[in-house]
Formats: sequence, structure tokens, C-alpha cells
Amino acid sequence: MNAQTKPDARRFSTEGDYKVADISLADWGRKEIDIAEHEMPGLMSIRRKHAAGAPLKGVRVTGSLHMTIQTAVLIETLKDIGADVRWASCNIFSTQDHAAAAIAATGTPVFAWKGETLEEYWDCTLDALSFPDGKGGFLGPELVVDDGGDVTLLIHKGYELEQGDESWVNAAAGSHEEQVIKNLLKRVHAERRGFWTTVVRDWKGVSEETTTGVHRLYQLAQEQKLLIPAINVNDSVTKSKFDNLYGCRESLADGLKRAMDVMLAGKVAVVCGYGDVGKGSAASLRAYGARVVVTEIDPICALQAAMEGYEVTTIEDTLGRGDIYVTTTGNKDIITVAHMQAMKDQAIVCNIGHFDNEIQVEKLQSMNGVAHTNIKPQVDKYTFANGNSIFLLAEGRLVNLGCATGHPSFVMSNSFANQTLAQIDLWANKDTYAKKVYLLPKHLDEEVARLHLEKIGVKLTRLTKEQADYIGVPVEGPFKPDHYRY
Amino acid sequence: MNAQTKPDARRFSTEGDYKVADISLADWGRKEIDIAEHEMPGLMSIRRKHAAGAPLKGVRVTGSLHMTIQTAVLIETLKDIGADVRWASCNIFSTQDHAAAAIAATGTPVFAWKGETLEEYWDCTLDALSFPDGKGGFLGPELVVDDGGDVTLLIHKGYELEQGDESWVNAAAGSHEEQVIKNLLKRVHAERRGFWTTVVRDWKGVSEETTTGVHRLYQLAQEQKLLIPAINVNDSVTKSKFDNLYGCRESLADGLKRAMDVMLAGKVAVVCGYGDVGKGSAASLRAYGARVVVTEIDPICALQAAMEGYEVTTIEDTLGRGDIYVTTTGNKDIITVAHMQAMKDQAIVCNIGHFDNEIQVEKLQSMNGVAHTNIKPQVDKYTFANGNSIFLLAEGRLVNLGCATGHPSFVMSNSFANQTLAQIDLWANKDTYAKKVYLLPKHLDEEVARLHLEKIGVKLTRLTKEQADYIGVPVEGPFKPDHYRY
Amino acid sequence: MNAQTKPDARRFSTEGDYKVADISLADWGRKEIDIAEHEMPGLMSIRRKHAAGAPLKGVRVTGSLHMTIQTAVLIETLKDIGADVRWASCNIFSTQDHAAAAIAATGTPVFAWKGETLEEYWDCTLDALSFPDGKGGFLGPELVVDDGGDVTLLIHKGYELEQGDESWVNAAAGSHEEQVIKNLLKRVHAERRGFWTTVVRDWKGVSEETTTGVHRLYQLAQEQKLLIPAINVNDSVTKSKFDNLYGCRESLADGLKRAMDVMLAGKVAVVCGYGDVGKGSAASLRAYGARVVVTEIDPICALQAAMEGYEVTTIEDTLGRGDIYVTTTGNKDIITVAHMQAMKDQAIVCNIGHFDNEIQVEKLQSMNGVAHTNIKPQVDKYTFANGNSIFLLAEGRLVNLGCATGHPSFVMSNSFANQTLAQIDLWANKDTYAKKVYLLPKHLDEEVARLHLEKIGVKLTRLTKEQADYIGVPVEGPFKPDHYRY
Amino acid sequence: MNAQTKPDARRFSTEGDYKVADISLADWGRKEIDIAEHEMPGLMSIRRKHAAGAPLKGVRVTGSLHMTIQTAVLIETLKDIGADVRWASCNIFSTQDHAAAAIAATGTPVFAWKGETLEEYWDCTLDALSFPDGKGGFLGPELVVDDGGDVTLLIHKGYELEQGDESWVNAAAGSHEEQVIKNLLKRVHAERRGFWTTVVRDWKGVSEETTTGVHRLYQLAQEQKLLIPAINVNDSVTKSKFDNLYGCRESLADGLKRAMDVMLAGKVAVVCGYGDVGKGSAASLRAYGARVVVTEIDPICALQAAMEGYEVTTIEDTLGRGDIYVTTTGNKDIITVAHMQAMKDQAIVCNIGHFDNEIQVEKLQSMNGVAHTNIKPQVDKYTFANGNSIFLLAEGRLVNLGCATGHPSFVMSNSFANQTLAQIDLWANKDTYAKKVYLLPKHLDEEVARLHLEKIGVKLTRLTKEQADYIGVPVEGPFKPDHYRY
Repeated sequence: MNAQTKPDARRFSTEGDYKVADISLADWGRKEIDIAEHEMPGLMSIRRKHAAGAPLKGVRVTGSLHMTIQTAVLIETLKDIGADVRWASCNIFSTQDHAAAAIAATGTPVFAWKGETLEEYWDCTLDALSFPDGKGGFLGPELVVDDGGDVTLLIHKGYELEQGDESWVNAAAGSHEEQVIKNLLKRVHAERRGFWTTVVRDWKGVSEETTTGVHRLYQLAQEQKLLIPAINVNDSVTKSKFDNLYGCRESLADGLKRAMDVMLAGKVAVVCGYGDVGKGSAASLRAYGARVVVTEIDPICALQAAMEGYEVTTIEDTLGRGDIYVTTTGNKDIITVAHMQAMKDQAIVCNIGHFDNEIQVEKLQSMNGVAHTNIKPQVDKYTFANGNSIFLLAEGRLVNLGCATGHPSFVMSNSFANQTLAQIDLWANKDTYAKKVYLLPKHLDEEVARLHLEKIGVKLTRLTKEQADYIGVPVEGPFKPDHYRY
Repeated sequence: MNAQTKPDARRFSTEGDYKVADISLADWGRKEIDIAEHEMPGLMSIRRKHAAGAPLKGVRVTGSLHMTIQTAVLIETLKDIGADVRWASCNIFSTQDHAAAAIAATGTPVFAWKGETLEEYWDCTLDALSFPDGKGGFLGPELVVDDGGDVTLLIHKGYELEQGDESWVNAAAGSHEEQVIKNLLKRVHAERRGFWTTVVRDWKGVSEETTTGVHRLYQLAQEQKLLIPAINVNDSVTKSKFDNLYGCRESLADGLKRAMDVMLAGKVAVVCGYGDVGKGSAASLRAYGARVVVTEIDPICALQAAMEGYEVTTIEDTLGRGDIYVTTTGNKDIITVAHMQAMKDQAIVCNIGHFDNEIQVEKLQSMNGVAHTNIKPQVDKYTFANGNSIFLLAEGRLVNLGCATGHPSFVMSNSFANQTLAQIDLWANKDTYAKKVYLLPKHLDEEVARLHLEKIGVKLTRLTKEQADYIGVPVEGPFKPDHYRY
Repeated sequence: MNAQTKPDARRFSTEGDYKVADISLADWGRKEIDIAEHEMPGLMSIRRKHAAGAPLKGVRVTGSLHMTIQTAVLIETLKDIGADVRWASCNIFSTQDHAAAAIAATGTPVFAWKGETLEEYWDCTLDALSFPDGKGGFLGPELVVDDGGDVTLLIHKGYELEQGDESWVNAAAGSHEEQVIKNLLKRVHAERRGFWTTVVRDWKGVSEETTTGVHRLYQLAQEQKLLIPAINVNDSVTKSKFDNLYGCRESLADGLKRAMDVMLAGKVAVVCGYGDVGKGSAASLRAYGARVVVTEIDPICALQAAMEGYEVTTIEDTLGRGDIYVTTTGNKDIITVAHMQAMKDQAIVCNIGHFDNEIQVEKLQSMNGVAHTNIKPQVDKYTFANGNSIFLLAEGRLVNLGCATGHPSFVMSNSFANQTLAQIDLWANKDTYAKKVYLLPKHLDEEVARLHLEKIGVKLTRLTKEQADYIGVPVEGPFKPDHYRY
Repeated sequence: MNAQTKPDARRFSTEGDYKVADISLADWGRKEIDIAEHEMPGLMSIRRKHAAGAPLKGVRVTGSLHMTIQTAVLIETLKDIGADVRWASCNIFSTQDHAAAAIAATGTPVFAWKGETLEEYWDCTLDALSFPDGKGGFLGPELVVDDGGDVTLLIHKGYELEQGDESWVNAAAGSHEEQVIKNLLKRVHAERRGFWTTVVRDWKGVSEETTTGVHRLYQLAQEQKLLIPAINVNDSVTKSKFDNLYGCRESLADGLKRAMDVMLAGKVAVVCGYGDVGKGSAASLRAYGARVVVTEIDPICALQAAMEGYEVTTIEDTLGRGDIYVTTTGNKDIITVAHMQAMKDQAIVCNIGHFDNEIQVEKLQSMNGVAHTNIKPQVDKYTFANGNSIFLLAEGRLVNLGCATGHPSFVMSNSFANQTLAQIDLWANKDTYAKKVYLLPKHLDEEVARLHLEKIGVKLTRLTKEQADYIGVPVEGPFKPDHYRY
């Protein structure tokens, strides 16, 4: 565990096949899983529908996805429809330890705790990938549930290495994390000869739910390096327009509040990026009475921000008046050390995009003349030579998961219903799908939405046959052309 | 002119080649056109860019699009880049008479006034289609700017008739308007033999900007009846996500206020449909303090509405408590006479979708036991046997154009920039495009947005080469995959 | 009529005792009055309650209040409870001519039309004050309904003059309007000797509903010059926190839209003053997607604006980036000619405070090198030597009344219910009230609110006796201490 | 500590004169106090201004106010201006243990930890009142900072007892807490004869900051039982319109999220009461996309809620559809056990008003057939015979303080600036003030606001002398009449 973990002693339970912070938290976790099940009607409905048929019966599934209470409901759904599941988190700070404990207590292998080091993180990922073959060796997963693409990356890079291409593994690492991955791959290469080739042999597909991870998949496909069929869950409407938008609207302030207890009203909050995540973030901050400034590279998104009444300008233009900075872009170097040095004293800096390179954290941490003070876990103060300090949250990782508990259950039910449908779909079509990136069909997207209506009291209007014919759609839908943007 | 026109005498000017309400309004119209030009930076920028090259030099263009001040700027843009333009409105109530007068005064043929009868309306459409050939006959347009698809419909139906298929023209009409169209076609068929065939011969394309009109085009293409290449301007992001959404947010309340001067705060407002138009409408009404109830058929849109805090239920469920009803669907029979009869006394009923069949206006007007009182132009009271009255605005036609002046210039600049680019594109590719429906490429969409930023003070951030490579896009864009929803 | 009136000929009807623009508009006015009655439940309820008792039976009442549809309902309420009413508008642009016509047609003397000159305006005020005594002379009112205090001012100044103090009347006028008043007083002094003394003899009280007018009354009372008891209707919660706040939220954008059809989204809108009127104005503009900047002198109101996320700065700081300026202060010289000269080209300037001196209109109009273009009634363009133009709405007078139709009926029902209760109260206590400024008691304030709940479907919770005792209030209310701010 | 405290062992430090949960948290507390000082510019400014003069030099001050980080800044301000301070919390759940530790570590006596029993709570209150006289006995405070009035109550009841009136102390208690108080008073009566009389002898005043506590003071004053001058800090605009409104807007969702991680979007949230606290609560919930229903007894507040677009109805009307209930009234029995039994399964019930009797918690806890499950500290599930469960937060006490950390620093800086000014004022006027309830003068209210502007970048406009004269106020303010409502 890294230096930021609270000094309270933490016991790593290793009896059986799991690594969690404290197995005694399982009861508490179970109580919260029970609550979450009531808030996840779509996912639970799919669980009930497919439990008997068990479409994933015996299928080895590795998940790399924030080990939260909501994810626990996803894991148990996958198990109830037959899967053999192993799980790791996809972020060093995002695990809810009571959720991990509750899952571990049921005998499902889980490898995750809040506050892992990067070395521990990638070891956990490997553990989640390693299904004991009963003969002292390991099999890989048949399906992967990915979030950010770390499992997909690891397998692809491991396979590349076993195929004889050592160029990447031996090249200088661009970051500490990259070095950690390379070291791991070298170690596995030494210890488990041929492991990745075995993994790839059985691997039938991956479903991926982040903008960033999906982007990686399209790049792999474009370079014709993608090893398996993939489903882009992120771009289901009921994912990107719900989780990314409403999820962030619910959880960004939560992260800021638990970290800093800061008054948002009256503050100048700079949101970098106005995609779905940025839209949700900006809406939340404004609702609290913050004055939101948006930065954008895309003229369409910039114009949208302006139409909503946000000031749109460059980050340089906000230095000295911005109180809070949030990156939401999926790109890198959005907030540089030069930016941070020029910020107003006491500025708060955080990221809600998937990777921590949106903010130049490593550069900040290694910079001369910068004093570091840890306030509490996931809250660090950096003081510059000019006397100004900034607060960096969750070391630049996802602030809503690092400093709070991530998105709430109801919105995750949408995302995870899509994940589950994608897993079922990948397995059902494992013999026919090509090594490319698929989207779930619109009727499933609509079905996911439909499963969430009753819980919140929505009554849907039904088309008459005559009306349906008039607009040229089936009475039952789907109702929109594929290019429709919602 | 119909019975609802104000009793003030109005002179129809017919000197030269136009029909407008009052040519003396031209000066006033010109002043407002000048103001609008300042508010339409994108359109004006395209005008300036292409004026010298004149890409539409000598091209005959027929426009069927609300004859407003903003449209005047579009018309003059098309003329400045070379086109030979004739214009009609696409709605009997949407013409701003001073705009029409100003255009007429410059010598551009325009056929439009506020408060046409349906017969007059379709005659105007024919006039706009009829370019004198200098020999006493008429040529048709080479390009069409359409809004709702009436010109496209007329040519297709006329051509069908000349091809010998009289079935449609002779079938019983489903509405008064349908009968008017059939009568017109029969008359043309008698008076101008072969006219439609001539028209189709020269016709190179249409650009269409409404959801409804685009839907018609896709249907024609699917049935392989589409006679020309078409560009779907509606689904440019800078159209559907701006005009439909922000345009309605700006203009719905404007229509309600000018018609009824009603207090919106505290009222229950029912918005039928939660597409882009519905989203804008609901946002506007809520912002005034109305309690908005949404009706939807699509579970995804319904869930979106719920996530924004709207009650989502059926229209039946709102009868007796709804004070204001707005249809936004593009479908028909959304508000039936049975609904209207059961509404709360003094309910206000209007439509902001393209066609007037969203509300059963014809049935209402011909219903026994319903007393009609005209309050002022475009505002009618209908009193039912139960003693309750409802107010119907703009006879069920577009309330923002019928009762106010439609969308403001800035947002129309986006739509019309797309229209202009589409016209240029259609002409440039007239020899290669197939008879199907095209979308404008994303880089043009982004360009349209970009042209509107400076006016409202937006400063765009520029990607570094390294950042662009990291996310795999050119530094100059386009920045998003085609399936991106904004 | 002044130069801005539309060139359409207008006939002034003078048969009988009224001056209105066009008596033939009476039918239309009546239809809209009928609609308004349904939207004014509080006022109508008071009318029904007091009609039989006729508490103002035979009492001469002069009203000086915007002659709108809503005011027509007030006038007819006063008449139904017994009063003998004469009416003028309190603003040269605020009359709705069909409302005035409808009232005139019932035989109630009314002197008001849209677009009066200042001379005409003050003559109308005098007409409204002059009740024929049947002997060729005139009696004054026994009660006055005032809005802005013009009637109160005129009587006080006239009386001062008749008391022998000619200093004010003979002093140089600070504005054209002041000169008009002085001229009128001199003329009356010459023509109707002792008139004002007669007026004051019978005058029993005034109810005043504007911040500005109330302020004048408190000043008069402080200087011990107040001639009659006055009721400050403005500071009833159901007036200032409704009419000023929600009324402006409903009507400011209406004025801007009817005047300019401008897109508000994306614009920088500067609201000068953040009292109730400013709060309503800012909320409305923001709801449309404008970026609102507030100017304030009061640190408490400034902090409130900041807590709502508005930028708060000086007007100087906004010059060059503000697109729309709205004054709401009740103070003067808020926008100077120097400000206007430095504004962004095409800036829109208007006022929603009671008096037109918030903007330096007279100075602007008489300034050298400024070109003036009238666009349409109540919309004027002024072009400065630097080439920039600004648009001035309603000549700096109340933009919502000058360019649209003012506040909607429902909110005015609250204000006018207070006015009516105040008139009844003044008459009932005419023998006991002192020459000072009174507020209506809280139980009447609550009663006014209560009368408006059913119309909009509000169900009130009722205290148990035990709960009422616990918080120390009667079960029926009043529920709050007098200092409570709502 | 009660049963809900986490099973982690907690050491009570009693070395020296304090009782806190864990003195080792002092360093962390100090870091957060440092951050808070930057967010509390008003309070820090007053500290700096008065540090030299030390207006409270040697004055014994007892505080009974939530022992949070912000309160720590208040305590150190009082100390820096000379006071001798002892402190307790005013709520069993509201203490931030690291804040208490940091204060204790400086030697200031503090008696507070999160999760006290009621017995411990009142013992702490007594400790805070007991200044060692150096002779083995105790002196009382000379000034009291109160929040909810518990200290004031205790002294008044103790004094009453010592005056020989034993009726209250011996009467049957209406609640468990009342019995605890009576037991304490009896014990003190037995152990410290004459203590309360000594206390009252030296007591010069109290400043009180809650609606509820102020209400008690006015009642005491009305009954002529108030023993000292009191300042009503609650009704300073910069307190009630900031802390109550914006504080709750910031912290209600924070409490809900930390307790339940619940998605607010799409939920039906019932806010009982629409005073300042209710207004802030409703605004926050709506901003998250919840559908807010308001209950009210006061027609004016009900009409305000309706004008903001909230449904206003009775609580009975919401049972079965409400997902979240928040009481904000200051009254009792707002949510009864009968209500809770009839709620939708999984409903969340909490209170943000000062006292826990808004919800019938004691009745719920002692009800037959109700199963209780503790989820985690301050989150309890109660399951009824009908199978439905509800979640009760913070045992019905202040949810923002019980489940989160209360209001953020910036808004508390306003409240505590008022508290500090009130303490200074009470001491300065100790010889002249009567035993009644005072308000701080408006110029101090404006000063408090002014001290908070710079931090958030507000630039104030300054009146010219001419403008100030025109509206009849000094250039420096105060700017508004006392009855102005903001």
C-alpha cells in the first residue's frame, strides 16, 4: 500500500483466492449490495430473465472494473447466469473495500483494495486473469469485461512479446506505470512461458465501457492488431448518455465535497472538455452556484457550451481566477505543471476522465521547489515557490471514485445491463463475430432503458399501428434511425 | 386571405413577379435584415467566402421555407453566390410580411404572406417552382431548398401523374390540404402538359432541414422512388442539436406569450415528445417555473426526461390538470378531440412540430356542439358542451412561427449555413451523386460551428500535435467519430 | 403622438369622456379581459366577496397605472365594489389600446393610449383626476391608486403651489418631463384656481405599488409633507416577491423578443441591480442560456448574486463584451452616454425599472455625432462616431410594458388583490389613519396568496393545534414574524 | 458511545481538560483548519481587525455549536480577540473528531465527539459551562454562543430550579432527552448547590443562530422569563439568507450521498417546508434531476414553491410515490410513523431542521413489528410488517451534519462573522442592554457581506453622491430599509 493509506493497520486477507483490505467488512458490504439491487432494476431484470437459461454457463470471465457495490451486483449477475468470474479493479483508488469483501466472502475471487500501489494494481490484474487449471497452471478468460482497456492491453502486449516482438517491452517507459507493466510482462515471460498464447487461444471477446478504452479498441482494429471481437458498450445510448452524463452529474460534487468540503457556490470552476462527462460535470457545478468556465477543442461542443451560457475560453485565460479545475477530456497534458504554478492560491485540481495523465501529476511530484503535504488519503497539497498552493485530488485519478464512491447504482444499472447483454452476445456469437468493434443493436439499447422506467414511475405512451406506420417504425420500436443523437 | 386576418385593409402587390402582403413594408424589413446579418456570422462568412467564386452561378434555386427575416439573409446569400432564386413560404402563417416585402423589393421573386389559405399556399409553391423560360413557358428549379418537403412532394407527385400513375391523385383525400394538392396537380396537368417531366429533367438535388421532411426522403429512397440526390441537413449536429433544441428553447415561450400573455410559472405544461424539439420546449417551460410533464413512446427519451426531473406519463393521465399542451413529435393524432374535450377549462393547445396533424384540428373544427370564438389572429377559443374552453394557437401549425417570429437569427445562421453548404455541395457533385440521402461531412459541421464562435466571444483551445496523435485525430479536426452523439 | 408611432393613421375617440386610440378595439379587449379574469383568481375572489357590501360605494377613485388588460380587471373590480373610477396610464408606452377601448366602451372614463407624448401623458393624468362636479367644475379623487407616484406628486406639487410656494414651479427643470409638469401646473393654476386645495380636502388616501413610488412616499412622510395616509402595497410579500420577481422573470424576455427577436443563448447580458426585479431579470436571461453579469452597490445583494453563480462586476468592466444591458435599480444614471459609446457594436440597452432616467436617454438623443434610426415603434438604433451602434428599447422606459404587454395576469392578480384590499382599508379607516405610510397586515398578505393556490392546484397542509402551539402561531396563521424575509 | 459507533476501538482522551474521540487526529484537523481559514475571509478579517484591541479580553465564553472545522476557526477567532473559551457540540452526531482534537491540542477545553449518547451530550454541555474557579468550584460563562438554545435552556431551567420551582424538573418527561436533562439538573442540584445562580449572576448575554433557538428566545422574552440580553444572529440577512439557504443547498445532497450513495435523478423527493432551509434543499434536489414535491402550511411560501415549478401538496398525497423525504420545518411530527408505514419500499427519510422531533423517531424505534437493521453509522433500515423498508438517516437528526460535514466554510464564515460581532456587541453593551432579543444593525450585516466579496472576485459598484442622494441613502450604505426582504 502506498504512503497515502491511513495509518490504521490493514490486514490483507489471503486465505483462499482473494486479496481484499478487510474480509470482516463483508457483512456491511452485503447490506449495501442488497440496497443497490433495489436501485438496479435493469440489471436485476436481466439476471432474473437469464438465470434459468444460464447463457454463460461455465464461461471464464475476467473483469477489470472499479470494485464497487454496483460492480458487486454485476459480478453476481454474471455468476447467476453461469459465468466463472475473477475480478480486479481498474483503478488503484476506486475499490470500496466492503464491496470487495462481500464478494470475496461468497468465494468469488476478487483482487482489489482502495489504495493499491501501481505494482499491486497490475499484479491484481494478472491474478484476475489467471484461472487455475487444476494442474498448477493457469488458463485465461474466455470473455473480458473491461473498463479502460487495461486487461485488453496486457493480453495484447503479452501476446506480442510471446510472438517474439520485444521492442515495446524493452523500450524506455514514458511513465512509471508503463515501466510497471513492462516489468510485469517480463516477469510473466520468465515465469509462465506461453501463458499469453494460451490466453489468446481461448479468448472470445471483450466488452468495453469507457470512451478511452473504446478508442484504444478502434485503434487496434484499424491497425488490424485486434485479437478478438469487441463490443463497444460505451456508445450505447443508455451508457454514454446516462453513465457519462448523469453519472458524473451525480458524483463529481460528491468527490469534491468528500475530499475538500468546499463551498461550490460563487467559485469559478473550470471544466476542461465538454463531451458527455464534461456536460455532466459542468451542469453539476453550475447547479451548486459555481461560475463554470469551459475549455474545448471541438467547435461544436464549444458552441454547445456557449448556448448553455458557459464562458468558453482557454485554460491559460482562467489562471489566477479559477478556483476549481476538472479535466474530462480523455486526452493528456490538459493541465500542465506550468498551469498549476500559475493558478490562484488554494485552487483545487482534479480529473474525472479515465486516466490520470490529463493532469501532469508525475511532473508535479518530481518538480524542484514544490513542497508536498498530504492532508488525508487522496487529498494532497502542493506548494510552489511563489507561495501558492494547489490541492490535487486522488493523485489525478478519477475523483468521483477516488474521493467518493463513483456513480450511483441506478445509472450503473444501465451501463452494467449493457455490459451483461454484451457478454451474452459475444458468447452467443463467438463463432461468427469478426475481430472488430461492434455496437449493441438499438432494440437492446431501448430494452435497457425500458427496464429502468417502472422503478421511477415512468409511464410510456404506446404508438397506435396507424401512428407507427405514419412514421415508419414498428409499434414496439426501435423508434429511431441509427444516426439519431438523443 | 383567411378569416383570421386582421380587418386592417391589406393590399396584395402583384406588380412584377411577387405576391406579398404589403410592399411598403420593405424599408422596415431591410432594417431588420441588416440587424439579422450581424447575428448570422456563419451564413455571412460563407457568403463572403464564396461571393467571388459564385459556385451557384446561374443555378435556378427554388426555396420553400418560412419567409422570415432570417430566410431573407439566406436568400440573399444564395443570390450573392450566383443563384437565380424563387421563394415561397412552407407554412401559411409563418411569413414575416416585412421580410417578404424587402426581398420582393430587390427584385427576387417571392410568393408569401402571413395568413394564406391552403389554396393560396400551394399556388405560391407552384409560383416558386415556375421559372419563366422567356418563351411563355416555365422551367423548374435545378436545386431545391426544402423545409418539410412540400416542394419535393409536389414534384414527385406531379411526375408520378405525368408518368401515367393517376391513382393517388384520384384517390379520396385524407384531409382538406391533400385535396388542395390534388386539385392543383390536376389543374397543372391540364394547363401545363409535361411540366413536371421538364422539372425533373433539370433537377439536381434537394437539401432538406426538418426531421419530418428528412423522414419522407428516407422513405422515398427506401422505396427507390427518390428522383434526385438529397442532403439531409437536419441531421448535421449544427442543425438538429441547435435549431431544433436551442431554437425551440428560444421561441416556444415567445409564441405562447405573444398569443396568450399567459403566466407560465406554476402552470402544468405537457410536452408531447422528448426529441430535440421536445427537449428545447420542456427546458424553456421549466425555466419559466412551469411544472413540465412529458409524454414519450421511446423508452430512451423517456428515461432522459426522467433523469432531468420531468414527470413522464401518458397524455390521458394529464387531462384535467394540464394547463398548456405542446406537441413536438412529428407524428399525428397526438392530441385528439377526445383529449381536448377532457382538458381543464382554459387549457392552451399548440404544436411546434412541422405539420398541423399532431393535433386533430380538422376534427375539432367540424365537431358538433363546439362553439368557436376567434380572439385575434392565430388565437381561437373552442368551447365544448361541458362548458370548458380550450385555446388553439396558430390553428395547430408551428406556434413559434404562427404566433411569434420563429427562431432567432443566430441559431438560424447555423441551419442556413448548412443549407448553403449543402446547395453548393449538391451542385458541385451533381454528376456523381446517386439518388439517395447524404449527410454533410463532419468537417463541414465543425466548420459551421467554428464560424459562430467569435461573435459570442468563444476562445477555442488548440490541440498540440502530440495530443492530437494521442487521441488519433488531426490537429484541425474532425475530432469525433461519426457515431458520436454530442 | 410622438415620432415613433407607426405611420398608420390613428383616430382619437373623444365622444363621451375618454381618450383612447381606437374604440373599435373594445370587442377584442373584452375577449382578452374575459381570459384574464380566469387567470386572476385572487382579484376575482375579492370582487365576488365584496360586491354585495360595496365598501367603496360612491367613492371617487383615480387610478394612474399601466392601462393593460390586467388593469382592466382591477378597474372593473373597483367598480363592482362601488367605486366611481377615472383612469390614466402611468407610462407613455404601456397602454394596451384594446384594453383601454374595452374599458371606455363600458362608460368608465379612461385616458390612455400607447405612444403618448409627455404633454399628452400629463394631460391624461389631469383628466383622470378631474371628476366633473355637475356644475361645470371638477372634484378630485377621494382615493388614489398610484404606480410610480405621479398622481401623488402632481397633487402635492399643485397644492404646494396653491399654498403660495412657487419656488419649485419656477425653478429650472432638470429634464424635459419636469418642465412639462411645471407647465401643466401653471396652466391649471391659471385656469382652475383653488383646484388642488379642493382635491386635497376630499383626498383620503393613496395605495402605491412600486419600489420607486413607495420610496417617494417615505421621503414625503419623513419630511412631514405627506398630505394623506398611504399604503405601501409594494412591500406586501405577495407584491414585491411576486410581481417584481416572477413578473419580471416572465416579461423581460418577452419585451426583448418582441422588440429585437434576438437569440439570448450565448449572449453576455448585464443586469444592473440585483433586487427583486434584478433577480427576476437575471433568472430569465440565464434560463435562456445567456451569460449574465450583475452590477450591484449593496454587498448583500452582490453576495447573493455571486452565490447564484453570476459574475458580479462594474458596468465599466463589461463594456466591449456585454451584448444586452438591462437596468433594474430605481436609481438614475446607471447607464451613461459614455457607457453606451464604449459598448460592443449592436448592443441592446433597455430598462425595466420604473423611470426612464436609469439610462441617460435625453443626453443620448441630444448628443452630437450620434445618428438615430427608428427601426419600429419602441426600437431605435443610435450609431456613434466610432461606427458602433446600440439599440435602445422603449426609449428607456419599462421594456416589458413598452415592447410587450407587461406582467401576465396571474402575478398581477396578486398585486391588484393587494391594491384592492388597500383601497378598502384606506376608506374603512379614513377617519383614524394618520398621514404616514402603512403596510397591509400579514394576515391579508397570506390571504392574497391563499386565493391563488387552487387555480394552480396547490394543496396546503394544515397545522394541528398541537403543532401550532409548538411553534406559537394560530392554526389559521399568520405564520411568520413581521421581519421574516421569505 | 452508542451502538452505532463503528466497532473500531476508540480511545477517549481525558488528559487535561477535554473529551474528544482521538487526540491523535489533531494534526489532520489542523491541516483542515488551515484550509478553512482561507475559505472564511469574513471571520478571519474580523479576527485580524480585533486581535490587537482584544474586545473580549478575559471574558468567559461557552459555546454550544457543532464542533466542526469551521467552528474551530470561530473558536480560535474568539480566543484571538481575548476570550476564555469552553466548547461543546450542540448535536450528538455533528462533531468532526479531527476538528475537536485540533482544538483540544491547543489547550482549549472542548467536549465533543461524533456519536455521543444523550447522557454524554448533556454532560459535555455542562462541562462546557463549567469554568474552574481555581478553588475547586466552577464559574459560569459571561457570554454564550448558542445554536439551538440548549445552553440557554439548561441555565434557565437550572436557575428556575434553584429559585425553588421544581415543577418542570419533576413533571413527566415528554421524551427520553427531556428525562436526561431533568436527571442532569437534579444531579447538579445535589452536587453543586447554587451553581446556576452563580452562573446567572455573571451571564451578560447570548447570541443564537438558529431559527428554532431564536424562536425559543422570543418566547422567553414574551413571557418575561429571559434572564439576559440576546442577539438574534439567525435573522441577519447574511445568516438566514446564506447559511440556511445556500448552506443547505450545498450540504443536503452531501449528507444523502455519503449516507446512501443514492441516485437523485429521477427520484421523487418530498421537501417538507419551504422556508430558507426548504428552499435550499429543494433547489439542490432539483438540480440533481429529482422531481421535487413541497409540503407547506403557509400560503405565501406555498405560492413561492409553485412559482418555482414545484408540485405543492400534502405529505399524505405523496405516500407510495415519494422516494426521499426531507423535513425542514422547525416544527414537530411532520413525518409520523403512520406516514412511514405507508411509504414506498426503500424510501429514504431524513431531517435537516435543528431538532429530531420533525420525524417520529422515538415512536418508530419502539413500535411493535418493526425490524431494525443498522447499515452503517447514521444509516438505519426499518422494515414494516407490510414488507416495506425505509432508511432513516442520522436518527432523524441534522442529516448534513450527521451524515456529512455540515455547511462548507465559506457560508459559515458569514454566520460566524455575525456570531463574533454579536459577542463583541453584547459585551460592549453589557451595561445597557435590556433582557430582550436584539438584531444586529444593518450596517454590520452589510459589512459581513462585504468581507466575503474579494475572495470570490466580486467587484462592487460605488454610488455617486448624486445617486445616493437621489435614493436617499448614504454613499457607504446601509442601502435598504429594515423591512427589505432580499
